[in-house]
Amino acid sequence: MGSSFGDLFRISTFGESHGGGVGVIVEGCPPRLDLDVDAIQAELDRRRPGQSHITTPRKEADQVEVLSGLLDGQTTLGTPIAMLVRNKDQRPGDYKDMAVAFRPSHADATYQVKYGVQARSGGGRASARETIGRVAAGAIAKQLLAKAAGTEVLAWVKRIHTIEANVDPQAVTLDAIESNIVRCPDASTAAQMVERIEAIGRDGDSCGGVIECVVRNPAPGLGMPVFDKLEADLAKAVMSLPATKGFEIGSGFSGTLLKGSEHNDAFVPTDDGRLQTATNNSGGIQGGISNGEPIVIRVAFKPTATIRKEQQTIDSDGKATTLAGKGRHDPCVLPRAVPMVEAMVALVLADHLLRQQGQCSLW
Amino acid sequence: MGSSFGDLFRISTFGESHGGGVGVIVEGCPPRLDLDVDAIQAELDRRRPGQSHITTPRKEADQVEVLSGLLDGQTTLGTPIAMLVRNKDQRPGDYKDMAVAFRPSHADATYQVKYGVQARSGGGRASARETIGRVAAGAIAKQLLAKAAGTEVLAWVKRIHTIEANVDPQAVTLDAIESNIVRCPDASTAAQMVERIEAIGRDGDSCGGVIECVVRNPAPGLGMPVFDKLEADLAKAVMSLPATKGFEIGSGFSGTLLKGSEHNDAFVPTDDGRLQTATNNSGGIQGGISNGEPIVIRVAFKPTATIRKEQQTIDSDGKATTLAGKGRHDPCVLPRAVPMVEAMVALVLADHLLRQQGQCSLW
Amino acid sequence: MGSSFGDLFRISTFGESHGGGVGVIVEGCPPRLDLDVDAIQAELDRRRPGQSHITTPRKEADQVEVLSGLLDGQTTLGTPIAMLVRNKDQRPGDYKDMAVAFRPSHADATYQVKYGVQARSGGGRASARETIGRVAAGAIAKQLLAKAAGTEVLAWVKRIHTIEANVDPQAVTLDAIESNIVRCPDASTAAQMVERIEAIGRDGDSCGGVIECVVRNPAPGLGMPVFDKLEADLAKAVMSLPATKGFEIGSGFSGTLLKGSEHNDAFVPTDDGRLQTATNNSGGIQGGISNGEPIVIRVAFKPTATIRKEQQTIDSDGKATTLAGKGRHDPCVLPRAVPMVEAMVALVLADHLLRQQGQCSLW
Amino acid sequence: MGSSFGDLFRISTFGESHGGGVGVIVEGCPPRLDLDVDAIQAELDRRRPGQSHITTPRKEADQVEVLSGLLDGQTTLGTPIAMLVRNKDQRPGDYKDMAVAFRPSHADATYQVKYGVQARSGGGRASARETIGRVAAGAIAKQLLAKAAGTEVLAWVKRIHTIEANVDPQAVTLDAIESNIVRCPDASTAAQMVERIEAIGRDGDSCGGVIECVVRNPAPGLGMPVFDKLEADLAKAVMSLPATKGFEIGSGFSGTLLKGSEHNDAFVPTDDGRLQTATNNSGGIQGGISNGEPIVIRVAFKPTATIRKEQQTIDSDGKATTLAGKGRHDPCVLPRAVPMVEAMVALVLADHLLRQQGQCSLW
Repeated sequence: MGSSFGDLFRISTFGESHGGGVGVIVEGCPPRLDLDVDAIQAELDRRRPGQSHITTPRKEADQVEVLSGLLDGQTTLGTPIAMLVRNKDQRPGDYKDMAVAFRPSHADATYQVKYGVQARSGGGRASARETIGRVAAGAIAKQLLAKAAGTEVLAWVKRIHTIEANVDPQAVTLDAIESNIVRCPDASTAAQMVERIEAIGRDGDSCGGVIECVVRNPAPGLGMPVFDKLEADLAKAVMSLPATKGFEIGSGFSGTLLKGSEHNDAFVPTDDGRLQTATNNSGGIQGGISNGEPIVIRVAFKPTATIRKEQQTIDSDGKATTLAGKGRHDPCVLPRAVPMVEAMVALVLADHLLRQQGQCSLW
Repeated sequence: MGSSFGDLFRISTFGESHGGGVGVIVEGCPPRLDLDVDAIQAELDRRRPGQSHITTPRKEADQVEVLSGLLDGQTTLGTPIAMLVRNKDQRPGDYKDMAVAFRPSHADATYQVKYGVQARSGGGRASARETIGRVAAGAIAKQLLAKAAGTEVLAWVKRIHTIEANVDPQAVTLDAIESNIVRCPDASTAAQMVERIEAIGRDGDSCGGVIECVVRNPAPGLGMPVFDKLEADLAKAVMSLPATKGFEIGSGFSGTLLKGSEHNDAFVPTDDGRLQTATNNSGGIQGGISNGEPIVIRVAFKPTATIRKEQQTIDSDGKATTLAGKGRHDPCVLPRAVPMVEAMVALVLADHLLRQQGQCSLW
Repeated sequence: MGSSFGDLFRISTFGESHGGGVGVIVEGCPPRLDLDVDAIQAELDRRRPGQSHITTPRKEADQVEVLSGLLDGQTTLGTPIAMLVRNKDQRPGDYKDMAVAFRPSHADATYQVKYGVQARSGGGRASARETIGRVAAGAIAKQLLAKAAGTEVLAWVKRIHTIEANVDPQAVTLDAIESNIVRCPDASTAAQMVERIEAIGRDGDSCGGVIECVVRNPAPGLGMPVFDKLEADLAKAVMSLPATKGFEIGSGFSGTLLKGSEHNDAFVPTDDGRLQTATNNSGGIQGGISNGEPIVIRVAFKPTATIRKEQQTIDSDGKATTLAGKGRHDPCVLPRAVPMVEAMVALVLADHLLRQQGQCSLW
Repeated sequence: MGSSFGDLFRISTFGESHGGGVGVIVEGCPPRLDLDVDAIQAELDRRRPGQSHITTPRKEADQVEVLSGLLDGQTTLGTPIAMLVRNKDQRPGDYKDMAVAFRPSHADATYQVKYGVQARSGGGRASARETIGRVAAGAIAKQLLAKAAGTEVLAWVKRIHTIEANVDPQAVTLDAIESNIVRCPDASTAAQMVERIEAIGRDGDSCGGVIECVVRNPAPGLGMPVFDKLEADLAKAVMSLPATKGFEIGSGFSGTLLKGSEHNDAFVPTDDGRLQTATNNSGGIQGGISNGEPIVIRVAFKPTATIRKEQQTIDSDGKATTLAGKGRHDPCVLPRAVPMVEAMVALVLADHLLRQQGQCSLW
């Protein structure tokens, strides 16, 4: 509870930003999946700090070790797959002031209130470093989805601060997304985004934005009526990522400005009996269940809380003080958050694929 | 799985729109809570169809019967509280065409794909009638929160179609919300909203909008690091309601347009050692854990899918056809969705209150 | 938690012995199972009080109403199946003394300690009446197992007090079990058992015994490594029944008197590649996973706690007092416990069948 | 699912007998518990292979590394505590034949049937090596129980093959248990047990027996009505250990030979209002809930399946063959299983303590 996610394809992460390491156990992965372990590492490299000049300079190779669950280091046994990444470049000294002065809009104060104790250095479990386990597990989920249903999960930066790109979820490619350090598949907009992040970072400030994600070729029938609707689980999944403030599916908030006759997605006949709709305001999900159309979501990320600019705050004794962040932080989390969003979405889909299989494949 | 929600304060709902009835089991409610059963009925009355001329004319008294879990019909025993509402005004005939022609943007087609069978009349589990169990359970959660921590949960209609109200979450009252049939506490805006719904309904069309919800005086320390962050569970809770397309907490999507120095909520010293922030862009939650400030969320509801206007669709044989809804449906779900949002939010808070008690109150 | 059981095929029971009624929600049942509702009622009739002169004379028709989850009252929709049995013949007056004087070896005192409140009449949730929901749900599980894998679950009374029957789990039939009121398939032993129960009951005393249960033709591969081994879940399932004191699988406690070379079940070659063993000390489960051989378990039931004989006890103020039970109770629970054991075993098997399907049927 | 146990105090184990290592994540441990990490290692040393001449000679130091969840390596943060033990002395070659010939009464064949693949060397997840994670987690649970309620959990060998000791659960001490290599607190019986194990081991055979366990000074009120009765969870917990065939609580199977008037535990008045009973046939639990008396259980362990004697079996092609075990195995698992039983019992108690706190400590 709290550090676990999923029912049948279930992950449990562990580890603080500073300490022995971070990692994950993946439970429930089907047997006889030939894992591409390099692909897991590749996802971690997309998430890794220090990957470009617009991310934190913290140096972590983030090499993953698969501790269990594979035959000959490759084939899943159906048993828990544990993965470990050691912490290397720790500088707890950087956080000495922060242990005393609560960082505004960070988790320092609430962890202290909840637990009466907290990791003195770094963000503990609230650090984005925790997401290593999610991304590693998500890389397995992606391979499962690809093998089982030819499903593809892609996310990209849609907006940085006020700069927004126009991207076609049907056509976007991983190559386009990875072609620049901000992970916006529209090259010219990407260049502006990088400039904006640089400028804001130079001021000791930070910015946020919006990530968009598409699931192409999802299996139809995923999601459960009532509480475990597919969009509900997707919302929880991405809203559990650090710094998220909002979630949309399909038409989202702007869809509320339409009338029913404008918003409804007309079904159209198909040759093979698969469901198809003329429009996709539903974002691929109806009544909580995937209809086979692309699933499209958007996630709002707030500006990074830790900034170098001096801020008003209180210390752990409740006295007023000021604070200027000294740790190595990203001026904008979005480029590194792209693989995190993909991972969470893939985990939800994999879980629901197994749940669908569990209930509905007996006869 | 699917029809259950929560961990320690856990509900399981059952029932289709047409059939013996709908209801809920509430598991884990603390013992020795003196329940106001009339207050449960009062919440159901806020959700009830036929309560005003802008809601569906389906006639259902929706009288709740508490089947178990109470001593002398009043005091909780700590055992499951089962509640049942019988279905009365069923007209399955109204749905005869729908069983054949899939309603656009409704759950008919996806249920058929998932299960290979579906409730032939009404929306089955996808009907808003299912939310009776949630609202009844939420009424218990509200009483639990009020007794344990003096917590209050209030929701209201913030926007209908393009008409938006300006409401102060700190000051809004239940009386103001209930003073009109659209449940917008700003009377003059409410009047415009009613007119808009009437006009759109006359056209055989429908509209959506945004509901806002505040939790005042929440216990600090609620929520879990990583996956069960309070905002993640809130997002899942409300995105599991029918017709939802988006979720925001605090500054939400618009907060992504601010810089960190503008967005961060400065801590201010207090006399009693409680956390307090100068602003509340965080929406009362930091690092997934409540800080004691009001929790503020917004939920996007799409326009009702079932409309009287003729639409293009396919039938269950995959052939093109047209459909004009004949059932008794709301032209706008938001007025009746207000108690549903409150219920889901209260359920999340109650669950996390017990989880916090479970882990952190031993010493 | 507490009143729910199972993961994918999950039941939640509710209801006290005195109150509006008792019942169950079955979640996760696969769609398109044509339920024989009469067979559910038939199982409840086997569990019903007043079915013979050796059971409690409490009169309850125990007619089940299926509230939801079925199309045309027959075909499962894949949605929750709620079932309700009303309480009829309540005599709370019988329990007036018991509310004050704690019945020895009953749940009165521990419920009071745990919750600080308790159902004043009857046994509340600790009453065997709670098992109605289990038996009704188990009847569905049985039909699922029969359809999916031709699996059969049969239990019988193996021992009453000191009288033990010799029964062949491979050959025993439902007809033989149901041929007498004590549910021991060996007719002459059954007659002695009935006499013993009558004699002990006349003394105002009670007795216990052992129930044996076989699962014939179980699907191979059911059960999970480590914590959710099939025998572990079976043990929990039956040890959750009222009055149970012990559980055995296969050779059980007596198997500990053998050496490995005597106890091991040699595998023998088969024509169709199915696993087969020369002996079945394993009781059909190896490493927590079914091997396809019959699963054989035994369950110890203590003598009924409530007896008419006067006993030493304390009252709710902690003062010494004496108590002689006046309620209508069974001198021996075993005849009515037979369908309960079958139900719990069927529930475990059904759940694991869906779990196996969920993880291992994708490719 | 499968490799996780518990609800609020929840553990997830990982790792095969041969591979990178084995370990566990403990989720939900309360914050601010000052852990004695040496005590965790001490429990692992009790479980360690090669600890005496009657256990397997496999050499494993089994040094535990705590990867996360502690402040300054000592104080729990309330976050997941991950622990890792590396595998060292691997000799996969020893198992080459076994990969082909299924070991009778072992998990080789059923894993193959279930997953269609299996760890080629060692027992994979079915190896007793998996229990390292349980024992390490149990050591934390023990410290939690001691701090919260002064609770003590002790297990010992009660019977080896046909040699049984008479032990008083109220008086037995850890020192007495640890005073000999077989872990039977009765020294003279212990000596006979060692001789028996030696003799049977010399024959290339194996033996089983019974472990007894007491929980002294348990908090009253632990356990949940209906399915999560304390004895049900204890049964599942210990029946999930390798090689177990039976479970008893209190009077167990022999209690079924008594009449109600003989079996019932009379309540006696106390000075402090705590419940006390004149006898303890209930084994400390009534109606599924602890009454504060010592909890006493017994667990049957079958003879070790892997023996050096030649046995009939089949190979993975289904052909008849013979097999004589060559791996390094215990002729009797019970001495090393003592800390495993204690661990599982402590885990159940800790979990229910938090669950009780969660539901029943608000007011």
